[in-house]
Amino acid sequence: MTILYALDLLGTFAFAVSGALAGVRKKLDLYGVTFLAIVTAVGGGTLRDTMLGRVPPFVFKDSNYLFLSIGAAMLVILFHSHVKRSYNLLVVMDALGLGLFNVMGINIALSSGVGYVGSMIFGVMTGTVGGMIRDVLINATPLVLTREVYASACIIGGALYCTLHHFGVDQSLNAAVSALLVFAVRMITLKLEFHLPRAGER
Amino acid sequence: MTILYALDLLGTFAFAVSGALAGVRKKLDLYGVTFLAIVTAVGGGTLRDTMLGRVPPFVFKDSNYLFLSIGAAMLVILFHSHVKRSYNLLVVMDALGLGLFNVMGINIALSSGVGYVGSMIFGVMTGTVGGMIRDVLINATPLVLTREVYASACIIGGALYCTLHHFGVDQSLNAAVSALLVFAVRMITLKLEFHLPRAGER
Amino acid sequence: MTILYALDLLGTFAFAVSGALAGVRKKLDLYGVTFLAIVTAVGGGTLRDTMLGRVPPFVFKDSNYLFLSIGAAMLVILFHSHVKRSYNLLVVMDALGLGLFNVMGINIALSSGVGYVGSMIFGVMTGTVGGMIRDVLINATPLVLTREVYASACIIGGALYCTLHHFGVDQSLNAAVSALLVFAVRMITLKLEFHLPRAGER
Repeated sequence: MTILYALDLLGTFAFAVSGALAGVRKKLDLYGVTFLAIVTAVGGGTLRDTMLGRVPPFVFKDSNYLFLSIGAAMLVILFHSHVKRSYNLLVVMDALGLGLFNVMGINIALSSGVGYVGSMIFGVMTGTVGGMIRDVLINATPLVLTREVYASACIIGGALYCTLHHFGVDQSLNAAVSALLVFAVRMITLKLEFHLPRAGER
Repeated sequence: MTILYALDLLGTFAFAVSGALAGVRKKLDLYGVTFLAIVTAVGGGTLRDTMLGRVPPFVFKDSNYLFLSIGAAMLVILFHSHVKRSYNLLVVMDALGLGLFNVMGINIALSSGVGYVGSMIFGVMTGTVGGMIRDVLINATPLVLTREVYASACIIGGALYCTLHHFGVDQSLNAAVSALLVFAVRMITLKLEFHLPRAGER
Repeated sequence: MTILYALDLLGTFAFAVSGALAGVRKKLDLYGVTFLAIVTAVGGGTLRDTMLGRVPPFVFKDSNYLFLSIGAAMLVILFHSHVKRSYNLLVVMDALGLGLFNVMGINIALSSGVGYVGSMIFGVMTGTVGGMIRDVLINATPLVLTREVYASACIIGGALYCTLHHFGVDQSLNAAVSALLVFAVRMITLKLEFHLPRAGER
């Protein structure tokens, strides 16, 4: 589980950076930027835990997530022009984080007795709610609802995870493969600039 | 309880349609429209269950609510110009849903040991929070706070429900009568174009 | 505990007034203004209780908080031009409420078994989330993220509370001293018009 934990922290860091960058762009103050970093990174998992009755949520039990998010915010505050230049690295980390958060969310929901369909929602929630709170707080329509293939990647990866889980595939292997699928879908659609169609465009 | 369940699904459908329509109007993508439909339909009840410690919330236990919301979103995506033309039908279903959600919320809160005043808040929450999340996600000031006699209808119906409950009236009868009152208040104020006054207008 | 309870109600009143004033300014209707007053006053504590599994949250158990918030909303609706003129009184009450809510939140989290770092977050949450929901509902970027020394005052006061708690200082004394520190930091930074720097300003 140590590798998964390390990857989870990596995803946390990537999400925190994206939150902090949004805060800097919106001209928030130091607290605002840090707050946005934390909420973007841990918001999805915190809502998941609250809705599953796993209270207090993970972020109040393991301070590493908090300190890592604060660290990410500080890095962005000090070096945000440099951070923006490493855009490609950020996108890769973010896609990795998405896959890992999704698989973690599904796994925790399944082990709390939630069915496959419900668990897939918990996966999407863990992967995307942090970013939605970030966007709502800076008064933007959430990106995940308008353009990006983000939640859909979670659903595809989640369907794979649940299928493999159903057939009794080893959990670590399943997590690795499914998270990679989310990562791949996200990266490929980004590369091809593929977006889901809008309802009105036909 | 089967009739109540059917009516609850009807209300869910109506709320999901209103969420999906808002998503189409805001030019969200297919996922965004579907997400908005789901959140509008089940958001209030999910918050209620979470705050009552009924976890995981109902939507993760009975997938019908989820699939019905997705179905409503698909219908809106495919036929949204037609849907808009059936505006009157929509308004009736929405008012029906409001009454049912309100009564359900109060009933669940009472049976969780909450008092009358608190249960009426849970009724308003079940009936109106989904629509508020919908409006916040599309960056609009929630309709329920600005113009519509929506929450007030819940409060009036909720007061009746609690009074009848106090005097030991049969629960199904009580639910039917109180939900109808919410429905009637909503429809009459819509017809008369009655709005609550604004604080500054005197 | 009676003095603390009275001060908690005072803070509730101050926060409710700030919510109602925001609602009047945004031209919400009577329900909207009242709703905003309630949510601003009890939103932080309600989220705290939900995340700690203390369900249903305090506001559903003790109706005083609700009725006090409704009373504050009515006062603002009837006399809002006068209320604005007593700006200085409001600011003092608000700063007092901030300190008390912060200390209450930390205390409740600690007694629920959360560690010092997590409890300080619960303190900030209790003090600031109500105002953030208020701002999001009226489509404004939360004040606490952009300009005001608000959360930072909570963190400073929270650090003192946890330190004194660690050294076994009497709880009532600790609460009084730490809440006063929050109050002092808030008032002094307001007086000096001190704001946290923005990330881009260097």
